[in-house]
Amino acid sequence: MSPKITGELLRQLRQAMRNSKYFSEPIQAYIVPSGDAHQSEYIAPSDCRREFICGFNGSAGTAIVTEQHAAMWTDGRYFLQASQQMDNNWSLMKMGLKETPSQEDWLISILPENSKVGVDPWIIAAGTSHVPLSALDQLKSLVSRSLKSMVMEIQYWLRRASLLFVDLKRLSVPALRDHLQLDSPCKPEMSVHTYPYESVYSELQAICAAHSPKDKVWISDKASCALTQVIPKIHRTPIPYTPLCLAKAVKNATEIQGMKMAHIKDAAALCELFAWLEKEIPKATVTEISAADKAEELRSQQKDFVGLSFPTISSVGPNGAIIHYRPLPETNRTLSLNEVYLIDSGAQYVDGTTDVTRTVHFGTPSAYEKECFTYVLKGHIAVSAAVFPNGTKGHLLDSFARAALWESGLDYLHGTGHGVGCFLNVHEGPCGISYKTFADEPLQAGMIVSDEPGYYEDGAFGIRIENVVLVVPAKPKYNYRNRGSLTFEPLTLVPIQVKMMNTELLTQKERDWVNEYHRICREVIGAELERQDRKGGLEWLIRETQPIA
Amino acid sequence: MSPKITGELLRQLRQAMRNSKYFSEPIQAYIVPSGDAHQSEYIAPSDCRREFICGFNGSAGTAIVTEQHAAMWTDGRYFLQASQQMDNNWSLMKMGLKETPSQEDWLISILPENSKVGVDPWIIAAGTSHVPLSALDQLKSLVSRSLKSMVMEIQYWLRRASLLFVDLKRLSVPALRDHLQLDSPCKPEMSVHTYPYESVYSELQAICAAHSPKDKVWISDKASCALTQVIPKIHRTPIPYTPLCLAKAVKNATEIQGMKMAHIKDAAALCELFAWLEKEIPKATVTEISAADKAEELRSQQKDFVGLSFPTISSVGPNGAIIHYRPLPETNRTLSLNEVYLIDSGAQYVDGTTDVTRTVHFGTPSAYEKECFTYVLKGHIAVSAAVFPNGTKGHLLDSFARAALWESGLDYLHGTGHGVGCFLNVHEGPCGISYKTFADEPLQAGMIVSDEPGYYEDGAFGIRIENVVLVVPAKPKYNYRNRGSLTFEPLTLVPIQVKMMNTELLTQKERDWVNEYHRICREVIGAELERQDRKGGLEWLIRETQPIA
Repeated sequence: MSPKITGELLRQLRQAMRNSKYFSEPIQAYIVPSGDAHQSEYIAPSDCRREFICGFNGSAGTAIVTEQHAAMWTDGRYFLQASQQMDNNWSLMKMGLKETPSQEDWLISILPENSKVGVDPWIIAAGTSHVPLSALDQLKSLVSRSLKSMVMEIQYWLRRASLLFVDLKRLSVPALRDHLQLDSPCKPEMSVHTYPYESVYSELQAICAAHSPKDKVWISDKASCALTQVIPKIHRTPIPYTPLCLAKAVKNATEIQGMKMAHIKDAAALCELFAWLEKEIPKATVTEISAADKAEELRSQQKDFVGLSFPTISSVGPNGAIIHYRPLPETNRTLSLNEVYLIDSGAQYVDGTTDVTRTVHFGTPSAYEKECFTYVLKGHIAVSAAVFPNGTKGHLLDSFARAALWESGLDYLHGTGHGVGCFLNVHEGPCGISYKTFADEPLQAGMIVSDEPGYYEDGAFGIRIENVVLVVPAKPKYNYRNRGSLTFEPLTLVPIQVKMMNTELLTQKERDWVNEYHRICREVIGAELERQDRKGGLEWLIRETQPIA
Repeated sequence: MSPKITGELLRQLRQAMRNSKYFSEPIQAYIVPSGDAHQSEYIAPSDCRREFICGFNGSAGTAIVTEQHAAMWTDGRYFLQASQQMDNNWSLMKMGLKETPSQEDWLISILPENSKVGVDPWIIAAGTSHVPLSALDQLKSLVSRSLKSMVMEIQYWLRRASLLFVDLKRLSVPALRDHLQLDSPCKPEMSVHTYPYESVYSELQAICAAHSPKDKVWISDKASCALTQVIPKIHRTPIPYTPLCLAKAVKNATEIQGMKMAHIKDAAALCELFAWLEKEIPKATVTEISAADKAEELRSQQKDFVGLSFPTISSVGPNGAIIHYRPLPETNRTLSLNEVYLIDSGAQYVDGTTDVTRTVHFGTPSAYEKECFTYVLKGHIAVSAAVFPNGTKGHLLDSFARAALWESGLDYLHGTGHGVGCFLNVHEGPCGISYKTFADEPLQAGMIVSDEPGYYEDGAFGIRIENVVLVVPAKPKYNYRNRGSLTFEPLTLVPIQVKMMNTELLTQKERDWVNEYHRICREVIGAELERQDRKGGLEWLIRETQPIA
């Protein structure tokens, strides 16, 4: 397969791009898609425009020619074929690889300001998402700035005087006024300007009216209709989240260290709780509410405790099937030796945020309860131990958590995991693990999510096993296309009750995972419980982390 | 937990909906979402509007009140809780269950024509997809017809005189004119009207101009910019595919029977091919092109053969790594005992369409080739044997095909499967199995897709194992919420080369799958080869389907 020689063709195309016979003004880039005017799968030779210009004859690919460059985007099926069919005039843009710019970003990075981009409107799909349609439609000019200048501009705007719409009566606290530098700003141009809450509509309207259509307002797609419509359409840049969200989601070394510390303290408190529950339950005096209160009391004894990260879900028997249950005096059940107990709880410490669910039985669980628990455990392990390529989105891991349940005809009607903030929201975007393909950012090392499959039998019991896990690099045998691999490291270190497992349903790999997890719990939390001189918790921990055969 | 008594509250709300103090005209429905004006996760008591009106206090839910009905939509986390907190005035709409209507469909089904729907624009998200914004924005009127009348209307329009834009010179063939009833239509109002191809733009423009904005044009989101823009925005109803596509995707009993027959004949031809290749390859006379020609020759001997379903991918050694390779005289390699051979091919028979890939070695594969093949096989089996709930979308199964490769740091850069037509396109929407979450329709019994994971080592070899599989009901141990379960039945019945497997890497379950698959191949295709008196193919089949230990 020898490459097509395209030098002369490109010269002619570039000449045409400047020719007033074809365009009222010269165009600086011309896009050549694959298809014909009917989205045919197999196209006629006369429609093989992209093959004609670059030589690559696969079924999918888009060529873009500018005055200086020629580049062709195609997907992984065609990397090898395209590299063999195109000559040196062409850059192969490997779609799906992290380092490959989108067509839009590439155009923005290489075109001068106010450039014009051409494309045949009969062959470009209206729904194409690669390039903003506004940029193509009727050869409108493209807002083009270098990426570098865009980043600088973002930094400038983020730092620059911000407008805060707020009930002004609330700004009387001196510490708050100081923090916002309302009275004596060091740098007036960097200070916060306050406006009455109600004026957001009119102020936003005025700001938009005073700016050219090239200036954009970032607006969340979750913003209200009313607020969205204040901003004329031409000014809107809808974004699922701001770059700040992503910066929060990827934890730095200090945050990771803090989260680990918070989870060690939190696990120590929970070991104490379970040891206490075992002792108290036979007396039939512990209720869902008093168990939740005890959990809070034990957590509050830990260093730098600030508060709960959400209201504790403390549920016995049938109440466990209410996924977001919160015990109330009129629903409060007593913990007993006969029913499954589910506790989903967490705390805010100055160094980090926790969120953990354990499902335990203080007597003898039924075979069915154990069977369901074991399927949930298999799902939990399948996610926690998964190895996957860098850049994988969380929703691609969701089915791993369900496969064992599905095989038996069971399921749970919630997502598998959410992002977790570091001394911030316990539910934090934009990453997560869910069958819903919400705008989840690809997973990368340093992100922290929960892994919490479950099973709920209405009127009987609820099961959920939740750890907070850190995304870390993995080192498998091979490294395909140098993409690198990721896996999870559990931050939560609280034993998972072996009594609830039907270990015959576990594979050897799964048994190994449980034993290794319990070994780490014993080692790390054991040392902490010793340091805190908490004998009850330590005894419980050591008993609950004995290896399974 | 006792339900909130809401009769009096609803009476007051319905009174307000008719009150000219609040609305210039009465509204027939009022939507009460969960959130506040800032999309807060935890909202203030004054913002708990939805809880106030219906009693349900979970974090997610939308209430809609009409003159006659009151309904509340929430997700699986809250089915139990909501049913306990709401009184009989409310219908609980369980989101995610097949039988639950969307808010939009529900409103259309119960509201009279020209009804008005109200919502507070400050608390409804602009990006909400549950209800068309146009219907909410400023209380515009909702186009409301009963579902039944909509279906009837669709049938009417689909049956009614269609417009065909075509090069009129091509309509000279009498059989074609007869088929389209161009000259003497039995029912003139049902005949096809032909127009010059070029007039589509002006005709569509004229049609839109002659109709009220309530009349919509279905337009594919893959349609060209130019065609899309002819249709004024108010007339456009963008759809990923028409109901006809879905009707094609779910095969009826005759089509399924035809597909099975086509795959039996196709497998018989392939068994003959592999037997022939084994005999000929040592002579070093078989090339990629001649092997592809032989495959076509053998298929063409089968009953009701019409042609190939796509150009045969016949590739040896490094050419196998070019995923959509097509042998050309200048790239043509000779099959040998030293290199992996990949053949991806299929045919159109009058009764069905086939598409099958097998990767084989005629000498001794290397340990690495076997290792990679085995990971691909594990992925193929993981999809083929998967059990999953009715209504699962194909993209949720994609990671099953990759898990074994990922665990070793490998991957393939294409989707796992596409829909397959029955004596129609071998690539057929709208279902498929891919990491891309394109608009894939939930899988249902009767759909037919391919299962084709692969691994490609540039410059060395390519591996792909592809079966066409039929979605069939599964009967696992339990039946969660009566949803029903699905799995796949392979229609392709061609042995998978055991020589390429490292059987030590397979689990017992996977070995059982291989043996059971080969047992069926031997039984079904063996009978066909005997019937056709093809001894070479039969011997090969029997040898290649011996059970593995």
